[in-house]
Formats: sequence, structure tokens, C-alpha cells
Amino acid sequence: MLDFTDPWKITEVNFDPSALGKVEANFCLGNGYLGLRSATEEKYLGETRDLLVAGTFDRFSPEEVTELPNAADVTNIELTLNGCRFDLTQGSMKNYHRTLDLKTGLLVREVTWTSLKGETFTLKFERVVSLKRLHTIAMRVSVTPEQDTKITFQSGIDGRVTCDGSQHFTEGQTRFYDKKYLQFTPKTIQSDITFVIDAAHKFTVGGQGVEPASDINILRRHMFSRFTLEAEAGQTVVLEKFANVYTTRDKDAAGLSVAELQEYALERLKEDALSGFDVLAAESADAWQEKVWDRVPIEIDGPDYDQLLIRFAQYHMQLMTPAHDNRMNIGAKGFSGEGYKGHTFWDTEIFLLPYFIFNMPDVARSLEEYRYLSLPGAHAKAKHNGYDGAQFPWESAWLDDGEVTPEYMGTDIITGQSIKVWSGFIEIHITADVAFGVWQYYMCTGDQDYMDRYGYELILDCAKFWASRLEPGEDGLLHINDVVGPDEYKEHVNDNAFTNYLARWNIQKALEYAAQLEAEKPELYAALDEKLGLSELRPVWAEKVEKIFLTQPNEHNVLPQDSTYLTLRDIDLSKYKAQAHVGGIMKDYNQDQITKIQVSKQADVMVLFYLLEDLFPREVKLASWDYYEPRCLHDSSLSLSTHSVLASDIGDPELGYSMFRKACLIDLDNENPHSSDAGIHAASYGGLWQCAVYGFGGLRMLGGKLRISPNMPQAWKKLRYTLLWRGQKLSVTATADTVEIVNETGAAPVTVEVWGKEYTFDKELTAAKD
Amino acid sequence: MLDFTDPWKITEVNFDPSALGKVEANFCLGNGYLGLRSATEEKYLGETRDLLVAGTFDRFSPEEVTELPNAADVTNIELTLNGCRFDLTQGSMKNYHRTLDLKTGLLVREVTWTSLKGETFTLKFERVVSLKRLHTIAMRVSVTPEQDTKITFQSGIDGRVTCDGSQHFTEGQTRFYDKKYLQFTPKTIQSDITFVIDAAHKFTVGGQGVEPASDINILRRHMFSRFTLEAEAGQTVVLEKFANVYTTRDKDAAGLSVAELQEYALERLKEDALSGFDVLAAESADAWQEKVWDRVPIEIDGPDYDQLLIRFAQYHMQLMTPAHDNRMNIGAKGFSGEGYKGHTFWDTEIFLLPYFIFNMPDVARSLEEYRYLSLPGAHAKAKHNGYDGAQFPWESAWLDDGEVTPEYMGTDIITGQSIKVWSGFIEIHITADVAFGVWQYYMCTGDQDYMDRYGYELILDCAKFWASRLEPGEDGLLHINDVVGPDEYKEHVNDNAFTNYLARWNIQKALEYAAQLEAEKPELYAALDEKLGLSELRPVWAEKVEKIFLTQPNEHNVLPQDSTYLTLRDIDLSKYKAQAHVGGIMKDYNQDQITKIQVSKQADVMVLFYLLEDLFPREVKLASWDYYEPRCLHDSSLSLSTHSVLASDIGDPELGYSMFRKACLIDLDNENPHSSDAGIHAASYGGLWQCAVYGFGGLRMLGGKLRISPNMPQAWKKLRYTLLWRGQKLSVTATADTVEIVNETGAAPVTVEVWGKEYTFDKELTAAKD
Repeated sequence: MLDFTDPWKITEVNFDPSALGKVEANFCLGNGYLGLRSATEEKYLGETRDLLVAGTFDRFSPEEVTELPNAADVTNIELTLNGCRFDLTQGSMKNYHRTLDLKTGLLVREVTWTSLKGETFTLKFERVVSLKRLHTIAMRVSVTPEQDTKITFQSGIDGRVTCDGSQHFTEGQTRFYDKKYLQFTPKTIQSDITFVIDAAHKFTVGGQGVEPASDINILRRHMFSRFTLEAEAGQTVVLEKFANVYTTRDKDAAGLSVAELQEYALERLKEDALSGFDVLAAESADAWQEKVWDRVPIEIDGPDYDQLLIRFAQYHMQLMTPAHDNRMNIGAKGFSGEGYKGHTFWDTEIFLLPYFIFNMPDVARSLEEYRYLSLPGAHAKAKHNGYDGAQFPWESAWLDDGEVTPEYMGTDIITGQSIKVWSGFIEIHITADVAFGVWQYYMCTGDQDYMDRYGYELILDCAKFWASRLEPGEDGLLHINDVVGPDEYKEHVNDNAFTNYLARWNIQKALEYAAQLEAEKPELYAALDEKLGLSELRPVWAEKVEKIFLTQPNEHNVLPQDSTYLTLRDIDLSKYKAQAHVGGIMKDYNQDQITKIQVSKQADVMVLFYLLEDLFPREVKLASWDYYEPRCLHDSSLSLSTHSVLASDIGDPELGYSMFRKACLIDLDNENPHSSDAGIHAASYGGLWQCAVYGFGGLRMLGGKLRISPNMPQAWKKLRYTLLWRGQKLSVTATADTVEIVNETGAAPVTVEVWGKEYTFDKELTAAKD
Repeated sequence: MLDFTDPWKITEVNFDPSALGKVEANFCLGNGYLGLRSATEEKYLGETRDLLVAGTFDRFSPEEVTELPNAADVTNIELTLNGCRFDLTQGSMKNYHRTLDLKTGLLVREVTWTSLKGETFTLKFERVVSLKRLHTIAMRVSVTPEQDTKITFQSGIDGRVTCDGSQHFTEGQTRFYDKKYLQFTPKTIQSDITFVIDAAHKFTVGGQGVEPASDINILRRHMFSRFTLEAEAGQTVVLEKFANVYTTRDKDAAGLSVAELQEYALERLKEDALSGFDVLAAESADAWQEKVWDRVPIEIDGPDYDQLLIRFAQYHMQLMTPAHDNRMNIGAKGFSGEGYKGHTFWDTEIFLLPYFIFNMPDVARSLEEYRYLSLPGAHAKAKHNGYDGAQFPWESAWLDDGEVTPEYMGTDIITGQSIKVWSGFIEIHITADVAFGVWQYYMCTGDQDYMDRYGYELILDCAKFWASRLEPGEDGLLHINDVVGPDEYKEHVNDNAFTNYLARWNIQKALEYAAQLEAEKPELYAALDEKLGLSELRPVWAEKVEKIFLTQPNEHNVLPQDSTYLTLRDIDLSKYKAQAHVGGIMKDYNQDQITKIQVSKQADVMVLFYLLEDLFPREVKLASWDYYEPRCLHDSSLSLSTHSVLASDIGDPELGYSMFRKACLIDLDNENPHSSDAGIHAASYGGLWQCAVYGFGGLRMLGGKLRISPNMPQAWKKLRYTLLWRGQKLSVTATADTVEIVNETGAAPVTVEVWGKEYTFDKELTAAKD
């Protein structure tokens, strides 16, 4: 059971061994380099212990796809207290809590536990993954017995962990140095990345440093020491454990041999141990303050819960994002579990990128550089499918991996077989999403350097793909047949509105930029022309772009999701709309059947309205909302936040707020203990930020222009947030009927549309609703 | 806590979640084709769930050695009773017992369990691995609630298991047929063996067959159904689960494609399900009676415990031995765990083979054919090391794997590194052990066909190795330097007595057989001459064999174990002699240091006295016993039984009996809960049989002759056993001072030495001690 009463802290108030994944994933620690799932120190049945390092993808076998491997576990510490194993499912406990402090990134668990022998102990467990020293994990265990106690700690490094049974590592060297520093050096089996994982232990009894009796044990794929200490009643025994992880893929280890890396890592470990837990934790808390809370302040004058959830979103977006390395991107479950294998989806561009664009444009640029660096894979995919240009993979991992979507997943309840996943083959809108992300980044940041080096080429190369993908129809128009749109309950559809409108947008934008470059940057144009063949392509694009078939609103103003959706049969969906867990319909129908029903997994035309809002009149949005939302099961975590923002956009912030509150529950619902077992829903945290800042706060980049037109729900009296617009930091204070904008940089005038009126101001703007 | 009061059954009388491995390994089920570690249906932390199939070796990575892979788990069944997970560590229980019935091979667990909700249930779990249908596993779970109960069974096939983290399988196909038959088809990653693993479920409520509500779930590497039933108070709900395993390495599947094997396996599964648990269990019990208890009756008029332990030894020897396939041999942990990776050691020839030679010569022949079929690996090893002939691997797996001893194992407490294992490089006595096994088999069975096809060649080829391995010394003699003898606490020693005496024996035997074949079987001789170059080799052998250096008893009649042992320093070993667990000295000294101390891991010259007993006078044996035994830590499970037999041989059966009783505890000691965690000690079961039948029963093949000279301990009034001597079944009844031998076959006269006198008899012999 999670408690949300503190605006900075989430607290598990009673230990539930049947819902371990809930806390492991949601309370995950990390820093963009590594992610550490918050399994407890002592083991429990059903736990998942994950230590993931960004970008270290490995493929177990040709029949599987590459994934982020689960590195060795360093967090397991087994305590034996006068012969009883510390185990919360045995004996009794009081004063239990486990708290994630978002402000500091510190995870604390405290409990007073009485063993089956009737002996009582007070225990405190603290853990931090440093946001300053990206390779460092620090832990502290404090035990205060109420009677004289012999305490045994068993602790080490355990490389027996897998990804659901797939083992990505050879064992490598296992070694103790000076009987006290543990070092484990496994290597990934296919991608050939050597990991160096170290650990060290430090003890005090009653505040005095001690060197307890210990042994050393090297076993297959694991190594540990067993430390034995005696504590008198009331005396506190403290173990500080330090661990670090380095890999040969690290940019900061470039050029080091494995032996040098081992030595380097060991030196850093000794430094960490010398610093001690308190110093490391304080340093990391300072980094959280500086990098996140001071940099991206969001203040809600409303329910503490909402404030907490927005911070929780920021917390996870920070820890899941490998901002240190442009060869890496964000995984769909962040670093909090093995789900989606660490792969990057359109989630980055559509759901997460806006937060970074408006708040940390350096991070956003790194994420967009990743797409540029992945072009070889996109070219290969297009070529493999007989198309031109860049066809981005639906799921993306290491730069040259190309398409990594698994081919099968889940259970077909009719055939009894695993379900074929078509996304990797035909969910092609990702290519337009990438182009849209580039444009969005450029429009908001004005980062011309990025565009010149990467951005124009990306948009043009994507357009090249779309032009080759269009198929002439008997109607004389060009179609995009046999796709999966955003709504993945519809497979093999033709002319999905989202896909076609975005494809057209992409080609239009390419034509526009090509003309502009030819006129304004002839050298760059010449280089891109040579690379992409623009001169030949442009007339073709110009001709084709006019002929792209686009679904049009029907007589009821409903925009058809694709060429057949509105003709499919309707069924009573009330059972699934009321479901406690997502995916219930898959237990009654298989994908073939669902494809033939008017039911959606997630937002589809809604996302289109949101990205290209000025293409559609409000009545089409309203009618489409009323048509599709009742048919949408929100079986994807990408759905609720889009609906919320759209609801706010169309003037119903109370509906938007109710959707926002539902979106808050995707991972944290106490009634749904297993929803985060495979990891948190990364994109939904970008979604929460969008609900608040886009939806209620009214921020949007529209057609290259800034708009701030708040739609505040009644529960929020005031919302303050900051944003960077083309290098200038703006501070926004929104209420139901006023907006104050302060240009904290003040280097140049800013033009902004507020509630339908355009303003240009230097330092401050106050606008009121009519 | 194990109870041994029933002469046919071992019973765990209270459930100990901290000692799961004890029962998992000792209560292991199997049939020589497959071995199933007896983990409970419901999972517990710290369990090891192993399903091993003989001969299916796979190598995870080049840095590891090949091993028997852990195939998917089919035994996990999770029960939820009115919302409470069935878990013996929660709530309370009474009437608990888990019993392995050796007579029938049936494993039964019964308990009356009260959940934390206060609801009470009586549960019975039964399990059998069929000794008749080698691919079949059958289980039955019966639940009788004391209140109306909603019962959920979650059961399927789980391929996420590993060998200590090393995953040997690709996932392969995962499929439900007709929503009720589960099929999982993984493949080993290196050796390319496809496994087909099936499961099916059948239910009754109150004796009536039902088809409960269920779902089907295919997840990564695992698949399961969740069945929900309602039971009224007092009504019994029964689940019968059937599973089978086939592989493309099976001889009985030879020629089948994977698709055909899948279909074949599914048909067999349906047959098993139709037969039902009772039929399968009864069939298997009949097979145990026929194949083991009727075929190898051993009756002890003495403590029931001793009777039980001898049966336990027979039970494990039966289940661990892949008698169905001569391409396979016995693993050092049988099928009961992952220890020693399923590899075959000298344990087969020296410790286990005698049981099969004297009782199941067909099985013994298969084991010895394995050695012949492994010759290519032995040739490769000799060649790699610069020697001639056949150098058998210290550890052996699949026929062409050659040497598979891991290079590193354990912890060097001084260097903090893993310990280099020298056995694979220099523990060379295995080659003589193999030759000795061949000779032993021939002498006892008279199987001339085996000798003509395989046996002579093996002995000659081994002799060829030895002749090339001898090194001339400055003393004009030939030495065997830099070896590990049977006592593995001594590395890099010269002229280990066991090795040198056996090498000489091997060359002598080769010379003898070569001469005999040339005279009596010129065609066979010519063929072997062409293959091995005998004509050239024989004169060299004849010259060399006379010059082999052999340690000689010193002035105190102690035979030196090697060239330096007796000169090493002595330390006070009392701490280690009194140790509760083996290997304690390794916590204080590292291997380099131990090599320089007069301390032995296990029997060394004792094994020599036992194999070549007529070479050494009784006073040398006595003096050597008194010298070495106090310096022997019995840190190998091969040690106690040899000492016991030797003690009986030298006329101290009470000492032999005390050693036998200690040997009985190797796996079953209640005070040592983790001694079987990695699996039972396979050779020790051959050892227990030898203590009884060789040691107390006085059976021995000596110099090709039969000897039956009992040395009965006081605790045993009478011992009855049978044996096959050159095709004739003899029934022996021994007491302290009489022997009755009945020739049940009675086809020819039998010559036997009893207590120093030679007798020849047709049907019956009664002899009395002087």
C-alpha cells in the first residue's frame, strides 16, 4: 500500500510480499547511466533484481532480439540475527515504511522486527544511486538489537541473474583484492561489452569502525563475504556497502583496456568507500536539486498529490534518460524493469521529448542526435523493405541494430500460439514521428547548429522514405496501405489518418526546407543534394504530396481513423471499459477478431489532433472525441495523457483533469499491484508533464510559434512552471483567467499567443482571459 | 529432519525451508533417462529446480565447460486457497511428512495446513518418474478443504531455469494445443539438441471429472494455465498433471524431425493422461520391483537403518545410470543436482561399476562401451599433450567432448582468486582406472564379445599412453612426474604410488593380452596391431615396464604416497578431523600451502591396496592405514567407503562398520543440512554397496578369481546378497563364521576362495571360518 500524502515522498506503509514489483519498479533508482530496480536487500520469492546500464544491448540468440542485459546484483545483503534470517514474512513487525524521497533520490526502509525467536531489532536500510558519480551505488544497513546479538551479513556480487532466463554474460574474472574489494568482470556474449562490477564493505559498531571476522567465497557466477559481528543490546551495527559499474562501452572509459578499466574502477571504489555513505548521498541530493528541482521547478497550488505526481514524473524522466551519451536513448520502461527490453519507441519523440525540449534542450539534442546516428539502421530497414530513404525501426536499440521489435509476444487465445507482432513490420508512422521530433526541437530551441548538422537531413531522408512508400490507388490518389497506426488493435489497415497526415506533413516540411536551404544555404543544400538526390526528388515529392489520400470528417464530423474503422461492427465494450487491468479484451478475442471490431487500444486520431491541431476544426475534434473515446480501452499507457491534453485543448479541463488523475494511476494504483512488474511506463511520465504543462498550463509550440493558453481545472488554483523558448527562460504563472510570463533571460523580445491574442514582450507579460 | 525408521522409506518429518536442497537432492526421482530434483510443487526461496536429461550436454560459452543443462521446470504448481497462496512458511501446519518410498519410487507429501486466514486444508502431493515409460513424469495434487473453498491452480512449463545462471536453451516454440496440451520446444544453444517438453492437466472434484475454468498464458520462456474450481467443505479436488520430455538426441527418436517428434511426444502425453496417475505409478512400482529389488536383493539381519541405506544406495544407482544408451555414463552427482555438471569421473570404474558388474552386467557393459566410444577424445587429449595412445579425460561428458574439467573452481583464500583446477591437466590415473574397469568387467562376467570388440583395444591403447608418459630419471628408472594422485590435496607430485603401480599394472596387462591374442586370436591381434602398432610397441613396453619406479614401504612398513609426502611438515589436524563440514582446511590454507603439509583429502594408497591387494603384505596395509588415516580429512565422498572396505579386509570389521556408518551420513546427515545442495554424492552409493558386499560380505574379484570371505560386523547377524559370476547367479548368505553360497543358475561348477581356502562346487557350498 503506497501513501502519497507528502508532496516530495512516496511511502510504502506496509510490506506486501505479493506485490514486490510495484515498489521495485516505481521506487527504482538511477542516473541515466545505470538503473537499479529497488528490490529489498534480503531476497523474497517473486522479486526481480535488475541492474541495467544504458546502451549495453546484447542479443542472447538469433531467435531473440537484443535487449538491455541484467547485470550482476550488488544489492542483496542477507542478515542473520542470532541465527534467524531477517525476513519480513516471518515473525512480526511494526513501524514499517519504505520511502522514496524524490527531492534527494534517497530510498529508505525502516522497520522494527521481531524474529520468530521473539527477539526484536530496529533496522534501517538506505540506498542511493549517485546522480553525481554516475557509476556509483551506495547502501547503508543499520541494525540495532534490543538484546545482545550475533549478526551475520552475507553480501557480495551475484551474476546469476538473467533477463527472464536469458543470460547475457559470460562469467569472466571473479576476484577479491586484499580480501576486501570484490571485482567481477563479466562480458556480454554477443555484443562483447565487458562490465567491471566492484563492491566493498565498511562496518561500525556503536559508531566505532571495526573489521569484522569474514570469509571470502568465489562460486559460479557469484562471490560474497560473510561478516560476523557481535552487538550489545542497544548498540547499532552499521554496514556501508559501495558498489560501482563500468563498461567498455562507456565514453568515459574509451581507450582503456579491460585491465586498465579494472584498475580504474577499483580506484574509484576505494574513493567512494573513503567518502562514505553520507558524503555520497549528500552529493547526489545536491545534484538532484541543481539538475532537476532548481532547473525545472513546477509548482501547483492544488492537491499535494498532483504536485507529488508531477515530481514523480520528473524523477523518472531524469533517471531513465541517458543524457551522457548520444548513442543512447530512452527505454520504454526506463531503467525500472526488463519490459520492452530497453528499446526506444515513438514514446521518445511524442511523449517524452517535449519535457526535455522545453526544460533541458541539451538532453533533447542528445536524444535527437541518437536518431541521426541511427540512420544506417533506418536506411537498411528501408532498403530491406524495398523503399528509399530512412525508415526508422519501430523499436530501436544500439545504433546499428536496426529493427529490434520482437516478432512474437503474448498469447493468442484462439490458436494457443504466441501472437505475431506486426509493429516491427508495418507500424511505420515512427518515421514521421522522428521527423516531427526534429522539427519540434528546432522550433522551440532554434538550435540551428543541430539542424545544419543533423536535422535537415533527417527530415529530408524521412520524406524520401514516405514518397517511396506511397501506393497509387484506382482513385488516382496515393495511399498508404497495410499499416498499423497508433491504435495497435487495428492491424493491416489502409490509410490510417495519423500515418497519412503525418507522412504528408513530413514531405511538405521537406519540400519547404529544401527550398529554403537552396536559397539560403547553398553549400549545405549541395551537400544534402549529393547525399540524398534532392534535385531529382523534389519535383516528385511536390507532385506526390498533393495526391496523398487523407480521410475526411464524415457527415457527423468524425474523422475516420482509417479506411474501414467506421464500418466495423460495434460490440458492447462496457466490460472492458470498466476493467481493473488493461488488455482484458485479449482474453476474449484474438487480434484477428479485434481488428474487425470498432474498438481502440489507445489514442489514434487524438494524437493527430494534438500534433497537427490547426488542421482540424474544433467541431471535428469534439465529434471525434465523442465517437472514439467510448470505443477506446486505454489499454496503452500512451492513451490517457493524450486524451487529457486534448480535453483541455477543446475547453474541458475538468475532463482533462479526470483523465490526468487516471493517468497518475498507471503505475501507482494501489488497486493494481502488478501493473509495474515489468517496469514503469516511461512515456506516461512525459504524458503527466504534458497533462499539466501542455494541457492545464496551455503551453504549446504551434506552427513554429509559442502559445501559452492555460485551461486550468478547478482543483488547481495556480500553476507555475518555467520553459526555455529559443534560449530564453520564461517563468509562467497561470490561473483560471490570468497568465503572468516573466522572461528571466530577457535577451530579446518574445512573441507568444495567449488565449487567442498575440503578444510581444521584453520582460514581463500579464494577460487575462476575456 | 529426516527419519530413517522404515527399512523402505525415508521421511522428512518437518519442513525446513532453510534446508531445501537436502530433500530435493536425496529424494530425487529418475530413471536413467531423466532425473527430476524433488523441489516442492510450490516455490520457496533458495530452492533448486532441476530437470536433467542424460547425455544432453551443452556448453554455454567457450570460457565454460559443457554440462548437463537444466531443462524446463514442469513441477511448479501454485495453489491459491480462498485467496491465500499455499506456502508452508505461512500459517501453521500439522501432520506434515514427505516420504520417498524406495520400493515404488513414489514421492508423497502430506500436510494439514491452516492459512493465515485460519482456514484449514488437507493436501497430498504425489509424484513419480516412470521407470517403465522413460519420458514420463506424473504428479497428483489432492486438496480437501474444511470449508467451502475457491481453489486456483497455476501450472505449466517454465523454461526460465538455468544452471547457476548459465542458460543453455533458446526459447523455441511455445504452444497450447486445444487449449489444454502445453508444448515447449527449446533447443540447446551449442550442442543443437531440441527438447520437446509437454504437459497436460486433469481434474476431479469429489471423484467426478471436471473441466474447470482456465486461461492460457504464453510468456517469455514460460507458459501456464490458471485453473479455478470451487470445492465444498470436505470435498476433495484432485489435479493430475502429466509431463514428458523427448529430445532429438534420444535413440528412440532417431530419424524423427522436430515436427514429428513434437507430434509423437504429444501422442504419448495423451496416452499418459488417459492412463492416469494410478496406472503410471503402479507400472513404475512394478518396474522397480522387477529391475531392482527382485534382481538385486540384499538382506541385512541387522539395523533397519543399514538395510534402508543399502536400498537407498541401490535406488540412486538405478536412477542415475543411463543404461538405455551406451553413449552416456554416470554423472558424479547423479541426476540430483548441477554439481560436477553431469560429468563422468573415475567414480564410475572404481566406485560404481562393481555393483553393476556383479548385478547388472548389461548395464556395466553399456558403461564400458561408453569408454570405448569416447576413445577419439582420449586420443586427442594424448596427442594434445604430446603422448601416444589413449589418455582419458579426467572429466568426461559427450563422446567427442574430450577433457571437460573446469579450469577454475573455488576460492583461494590467500590470493582472492578462483583456484586453478589441475585435475584436468595432470590427474592422469583415470586412464589406468578405465583399463582396470575393463579388466574387472571381463574377469567377472567373462564377456568375451566385449573384450574382442572393445576391451582388449582399450587396455592396449591405455598402455600405449602410459609407456609414452614415463620419464627417464637420473636413477636409470622411469618416473611419472608432476601428477595429481587420488589425493587431490597434493598437486604436482612425482611418482604417486597409486598412479605408478596402476600404470605398471596396465602395461603388464597389455603385454599379457597382446601375447595371448597373438597366440590365440591371430586375426584380432593383426587388426589391433595395425591399429595400434603392437609389434613395435611390445618390446618397448617389456623393457619399460621393468624400470618403472615404484615407491617401497619404508622402515615402518608405510608405503610412501609419492616421492615427498613423508618428508612434508605435519600440522595439528584435530580441528579439521573434528569438522562438521568437509573442506575446512581450505578456509585456513590455500592449495599451495596444503600441498606442503602431510594431509590428505581422501584415500590414496588405500585405493591401491584395495585394487591391487595381493601386491602388498598385511603389515604394510596396517602400518599405512595407521599412518595415513589420521592425516586424511575424508574431504572427498570417495574416502570413507574405501577405508571401510580396507578396514574389513585387514580384519577390523568394527572399524569398517564405523566408517560405513559415517559414509551413510555423507548425504543424509541431519546435522549437515547443505551437504547435498549441489546433488548427492553418486560414487558414495557404490561405496556403500562395497562396504556391505565387498567389505562385510567379503566379495571380491582378485587376480581374476572369485573370493567370498565375509568380515561381518557385530551389528549384522546375517547378510544375504546375490551376484552374477560369469553368467551364473550366486546367492550368498554370510554370518560371522559361515558362508552359504547357492548357485541358482547351476550351469557349471564355480570356484571360489573362502577365508583362505579354495572350493569348487556345483550347486551349493557351505563354508565355516576356522
